[in-house]
Amino acid sequence: MKKIILASKSIDRSELLKKAGIPFEKSVTNIDEEKYKAKYSHGNDLVKELAKVKALFAKNKLIKSELDALIVAADSLVILEGEIIGKAQTEEEAFKIIKKLTGRTHELITGIAITETNNPKIVIDSDTTFVQFLKLSDEEIIQYIKTDEWKGRAGAYSINDKASLFIKKINGSSSNVIGLPMHKLYKILRTEFGLNLFHIERA
Amino acid sequence: MKKIILASKSIDRSELLKKAGIPFEKSVTNIDEEKYKAKYSHGNDLVKELAKVKALFAKNKLIKSELDALIVAADSLVILEGEIIGKAQTEEEAFKIIKKLTGRTHELITGIAITETNNPKIVIDSDTTFVQFLKLSDEEIIQYIKTDEWKGRAGAYSINDKASLFIKKINGSSSNVIGLPMHKLYKILRTEFGLNLFHIERA
Repeated sequence: MKKIILASKSIDRSELLKKAGIPFEKSVTNIDEEKYKAKYSHGNDLVKELAKVKALFAKNKLIKSELDALIVAADSLVILEGEIIGKAQTEEEAFKIIKKLTGRTHELITGIAITETNNPKIVIDSDTTFVQFLKLSDEEIIQYIKTDEWKGRAGAYSINDKASLFIKKINGSSSNVIGLPMHKLYKILRTEFGLNLFHIERA
Repeated sequence: MKKIILASKSIDRSELLKKAGIPFEKSVTNIDEEKYKAKYSHGNDLVKELAKVKALFAKNKLIKSELDALIVAADSLVILEGEIIGKAQTEEEAFKIIKKLTGRTHELITGIAITETNNPKIVIDSDTTFVQFLKLSDEEIIQYIKTDEWKGRAGAYSINDKASLFIKKINGSSSNVIGLPMHKLYKILRTEFGLNLFHIERA
């Protein structure tokens, strides 16, 4: 089977692939995300562009090392009433983000880009999940921030960890909220790249 | 802090509590679930009854051992167009269940019951999540069944494992699909038992 390369640093995305029994390797991309954030005002366009740029960055690197592989890249962000919310850099920023999201419904958008080293084709798509938070007190938010779950995560929360306590409901794909819409990965690989993830051996 | 006892064998429920940083111990209950299945034709009534029976079974056991504890019990099942679908016992049953669910939307219902050894109060609730599967071929279902994810799970699938590839969307709580509606656990413990899960030390 062709090697699958995940062009992402995210531990959550790795975990999704592992749990689905998909063998893969990682390729770390080095993109100046801020540069793109200034160019795109719509979250949907931004995550698709960032996923594309990550995929092409990894593709160039792999072609140089003469590796034949299928490349999967993704980028996630949160939108609240039109405003793009990314990752927090400090506890204070994480508090501000959760404080904004608490008691409300936001959109979690992930862009996904898939290509192959020996194929000019690149398929780019995105998926949106609506996520509704319970209302938390400031004291509860402070306690939540102490878990450090916010680190490196769009929207400063992790749905499968302590944040499960305040996620009232979601509407859409749950793997998308974790960082990779797995049903889209399966469909794109099957229909566009002839790879059926149900027919591969477990990792 | 008062000891929390999870009255459930489910590895998934244990995992949810662990990932939310909640310290707990397990108490295995021994209930003849078939006896109750015959008595309740509505899934919602059945899961609430089974959660209650499990909680009271554990409570009696703990009172006998003179342990002071808060008890959390749960039971999950799948409903497809009014039909109650439980756990598969064989690969053939698992195949039949997934074959029924594929390409359609079902309800995943979890009943939850919470009580304390030193308190006559018992709070019983349930949560429903709608889960939509992509359409799989028989060959893909056979490959999926080989993962053994179906074992011991309502509806014969595990949302966070390989089943993530065919779960198109959910509407409701994602922890509920795993086996315990964590937002309800948090709310019931806070409002009915005076325990705030954000104020406890991590396990």
